[in-house]
Amino acid sequence: MEHPLPFQAIDAARTRIAPFVRHTPLMPLPALRSDFHPNLQIKLENLQVSGSFKARGVFNHLLQLDQIQRERGVIAASGGNHGLALAYAAWRLGIPATVYLPERASADRERRIAAWGARIFRYGDVWDDAHQCAVEHARAEGLYYVHPFDDVRTLEGQGTLGLELLTDAPCIDLALIAVGGGGLIGGVAAALKQARPGIRIIGVEPVGAPTMTVSLNAGRLVELPAVHSIADTLSPRALSERTLDLALRYVDEVALVTDQQMVEAMHWLWTECNQLVEPAGAAVIAALQGNAIDIARYTAPVAVICGGNADAACVFEKYGVRNDPHPS
Amino acid sequence: MEHPLPFQAIDAARTRIAPFVRHTPLMPLPALRSDFHPNLQIKLENLQVSGSFKARGVFNHLLQLDQIQRERGVIAASGGNHGLALAYAAWRLGIPATVYLPERASADRERRIAAWGARIFRYGDVWDDAHQCAVEHARAEGLYYVHPFDDVRTLEGQGTLGLELLTDAPCIDLALIAVGGGGLIGGVAAALKQARPGIRIIGVEPVGAPTMTVSLNAGRLVELPAVHSIADTLSPRALSERTLDLALRYVDEVALVTDQQMVEAMHWLWTECNQLVEPAGAAVIAALQGNAIDIARYTAPVAVICGGNADAACVFEKYGVRNDPHPS
Repeated sequence: MEHPLPFQAIDAARTRIAPFVRHTPLMPLPALRSDFHPNLQIKLENLQVSGSFKARGVFNHLLQLDQIQRERGVIAASGGNHGLALAYAAWRLGIPATVYLPERASADRERRIAAWGARIFRYGDVWDDAHQCAVEHARAEGLYYVHPFDDVRTLEGQGTLGLELLTDAPCIDLALIAVGGGGLIGGVAAALKQARPGIRIIGVEPVGAPTMTVSLNAGRLVELPAVHSIADTLSPRALSERTLDLALRYVDEVALVTDQQMVEAMHWLWTECNQLVEPAGAAVIAALQGNAIDIARYTAPVAVICGGNADAACVFEKYGVRNDPHPS
Repeated sequence: MEHPLPFQAIDAARTRIAPFVRHTPLMPLPALRSDFHPNLQIKLENLQVSGSFKARGVFNHLLQLDQIQRERGVIAASGGNHGLALAYAAWRLGIPATVYLPERASADRERRIAAWGARIFRYGDVWDDAHQCAVEHARAEGLYYVHPFDDVRTLEGQGTLGLELLTDAPCIDLALIAVGGGGLIGGVAAALKQARPGIRIIGVEPVGAPTMTVSLNAGRLVELPAVHSIADTLSPRALSERTLDLALRYVDEVALVTDQQMVEAMHWLWTECNQLVEPAGAAVIAALQGNAIDIARYTAPVAVICGGNADAACVFEKYGVRNDPHPS
């Protein structure tokens, strides 16, 4: 295998990051209604520190830096959650952080990142543009670049979520995982399949950003000319060779969901589970509700709610709350 | 003891309601920052079916009704969460439901209750007025009245949350619990103290509705002339003899929190834990942030987030979603 991700390395990452991240819960049954598989469990990774799985990979990087790297600082480009995780983890460990956002990233995301003290730049239309600029910046200032998916340390960190599934759902036979750059599904699938090759892995991505679908169909890395999705965090223009390699090896199937389906699933998660999440976090539920996949034959399916950073500022404005309470 | 609530009865309620409610998770550590006790755990009862602990007591009633009672239907008065739990549980079990709301109950709460098919009436300024009217209505139509706190079946049901704490936090030595009519704290404290008398129980109530504080201070039931709190679900005008009796026996201390503190705690729960809850659900966090209580000497404190039914309609309006997806 060109880009191996050994189970032992994922397990070592778990030990490394354990003091800094949350072992997130599986949503207990029963659901309010019988509209889903009766055994479906939901992994509430929206409860992770910084609101998404990204904290796992980021901490796995930052905890391995030497003193000089820590003093110089870290940098990343992110549509939101990876940048937020970097800003938080760097604050937690006392490391200076810089985050590049694409122009279209929401004001709410920027506020949250700034609240943890990170330096912020905006550049480009989509993540890929911001990424190129951040890589240049890292080189110019000697900063440590934390890639959101194309790095073995990132993938090992995301893979730790898979280890939690093996602990909490020992009979798991299906995992539904959203796809952006392929880091989460790559890491988690590597963990699950090396432990139990029979577990089926199904990716879910937006119809407007079908990065993994086109690359798997072509059998090689394909860059989309453009992406259009409400789920900005699921919308890079391409996987990397590394995450495609993992996908070719470990991902069994990819389902597509529309923006409208994601919004409806987001609403379902709020009204039925009291979990307010971002559209990307609801993608796996959208795939089930839209019948994009049939999970009836599985006995212990798990859907991963990958992130929860919805913009809820309007809820708090009603109460006169406007600013984040993070450290100044 | 005038109003006993035996551990065995609570345990029997757990078995009875188990197929219909969720064993809700404890929020895993670590917190984002070190502003709290490092071992504090948060019981996410906002993840309960219907969004609050009320489902426990309601199911414990409805599952013990005979066929005639089920056919005639059930009725309750509620500022929101108890009514929502009744509407949901009745829908789930195929029982007709009627809910009386005080006039000040929010439109969002009414929408959610109506979405489960319950018949709704509005009456009176506060819960106590709606309650009187609902009791009359129950008598007139022969409906089964489900009291939100002054009933042994309700208390047994709420007590099942305490059993989950004993299972998931076996070393628990402090429980922080919000106080409305005293049903949640009464049931949970009875479960905890009968199992382990050394566990300290601290109630939290709004300064504008200090029902338990005044009654405990007086050593008898005191009805407040008026209540004023953003946390409508914590604002009846009085406990009952039954819940006061439990409080006198099992509650060690009651702390008071302001509306502003509850709003700030609600914001904290969203920004630090990605949990959007109602003000009452954040009351226990408000008590910690406002230093109303000092928990430094406890080794395994747990704060119960009792309900999550915030009004998040504005979040979904941005996406063009307006109606609840509940069954028609």
